[in-house]
Amino acid sequence: MDCGGTKILAGVVGRDGTVDRRHALATPTSSEEDLLEALDGVVETLLGEDVVAIGLGVPSQIDQRTGRAVSSVHVPLRDVDLRGRMGDRFGLPVGIDNDGNAAAIAEWRLGAGRGASNIVLLTLGTGIGGGLILDGRPFRGSVGGGAELGHMVLDYGGPPCKGDCTGHGHFEAFAAGSAANALARARFGEHADARRLVDAAEGGDQGAISDLAELGHRLGAGIGSLVNIFNPELVIIGGGFADAGELILGPARETLAVEGLPLPREVVRIVLAELGHEAGMVGAALVGFETLDEPA
Amino acid sequence: MDCGGTKILAGVVGRDGTVDRRHALATPTSSEEDLLEALDGVVETLLGEDVVAIGLGVPSQIDQRTGRAVSSVHVPLRDVDLRGRMGDRFGLPVGIDNDGNAAAIAEWRLGAGRGASNIVLLTLGTGIGGGLILDGRPFRGSVGGGAELGHMVLDYGGPPCKGDCTGHGHFEAFAAGSAANALARARFGEHADARRLVDAAEGGDQGAISDLAELGHRLGAGIGSLVNIFNPELVIIGGGFADAGELILGPARETLAVEGLPLPREVVRIVLAELGHEAGMVGAALVGFETLDEPA
Repeated sequence: MDCGGTKILAGVVGRDGTVDRRHALATPTSSEEDLLEALDGVVETLLGEDVVAIGLGVPSQIDQRTGRAVSSVHVPLRDVDLRGRMGDRFGLPVGIDNDGNAAAIAEWRLGAGRGASNIVLLTLGTGIGGGLILDGRPFRGSVGGGAELGHMVLDYGGPPCKGDCTGHGHFEAFAAGSAANALARARFGEHADARRLVDAAEGGDQGAISDLAELGHRLGAGIGSLVNIFNPELVIIGGGFADAGELILGPARETLAVEGLPLPREVVRIVLAELGHEAGMVGAALVGFETLDEPA
Repeated sequence: MDCGGTKILAGVVGRDGTVDRRHALATPTSSEEDLLEALDGVVETLLGEDVVAIGLGVPSQIDQRTGRAVSSVHVPLRDVDLRGRMGDRFGLPVGIDNDGNAAAIAEWRLGAGRGASNIVLLTLGTGIGGGLILDGRPFRGSVGGGAELGHMVLDYGGPPCKGDCTGHGHFEAFAAGSAANALARARFGEHADARRLVDAAEGGDQGAISDLAELGHRLGAGIGSLVNIFNPELVIIGGGFADAGELILGPARETLAVEGLPLPREVVRIVLAELGHEAGMVGAALVGFETLDEPA
């Protein structure tokens, strides 16, 4: 299951990424209780004799010591024992992870990152999710809270974050969908959004093209930071806002060439994710399989 | 040998960090030739039957595939085969590394990071050096150019970097010694520097205290970014500018509490480096010993 801020996508997924049955619904964000009930319902719908483990990706900080979702930015999950709760209810091994980490694992095993050992993944949506493969292994930090790449400070003193993040000028508030929404409203009025901006730019609107280029430059500054920190082989870009394609990636590459140090910027390739909107779901399944492979 | 922008510190160092003979001199920055000659001279001075390998830390981007120093910010080393050159000349195994990586290895093995598996190290000087221990191993990126933590963009569109870095508003230009020098000049005139600012603040000068607090807040924003990215157990702070102590670390902790996400900011401890100005030298020696331990 991949539980995003907007949709829950779930499926019965094999180790090779093949998806058998699928189920999708809108994410209930009214309360934690409603959301947990929806997640249980999804499992009940898909459960069958072929299901050997449950994998769940959520846009939350996970404490892997306890299996708890500690805090979230876009869904109402706060200090809840996701792993224990679901394990008790369904009697199956449960693996949980941040949705960005899950997507990175999927792209590394089955998508654009096959064969690479050092990968930075960014999923551009309303916010920015992050995932890391470092020296050939998923990296989650000391207790599982790692790879929150959307929460680097990129614009000191800049726009505030949402949800449980109290920060300012973080990468996701400055360079992704919410920033695009703000630019769209400024240009086309209060009902416009990122989609409107991209449509207008694709239709040749110079103002919209310039707005997206500015977002691309900001994205490039964030990518430059990550390239300097990680010297990765690949930066993989996914998520809905990545549909803006070269309108943002062209300017991002220009800025990377300025903000990146010579060695890491020459080594890195910026590529699009291959697994599309199912990367998080497939990755969550791989996290579920991890529970079967670990020494007990 | 630890070759910094100001000094070369060298010694005959045991695996346990004990230092036998020492040698120090000012770093010649007039030309690459002068600098390489000085490094050779240091080795010649210290060489003896007890020397089994050479370890060298430099403030440069190292391509570990080739042993070359590709680019540097504070010394004249650019595209030079440091490892091969020194190996040919002295007939000993040579390990080279970025000085920040070397300091992180030293603090992890023998200093403030003993027993920890996920460590972010920052050395605050004129610039900011970085080093990473991740999941119990030194992390250098895909070809050795990793952990340039001073080159995260922290202030989009901010002050330019120096040397081979063409970036803007990077952590080191915004929150370390060079930024302190600029604030000192603005407050006390063109001959003032970071040292003057710290002395004045320690003497109770409210303006200087406020300047250092601003730098501390910027430092805290950078630490917050790193804490969100890595969810480390420890952030170790070293380098000459760390002598400002709580004048910068107090405000840094305040900002970390705002910019850090709940889980990683609760887990992390911010501590001072223990090995002082010899961390880079001891770490370089440990990098030299690595060459003896690796499978040939």
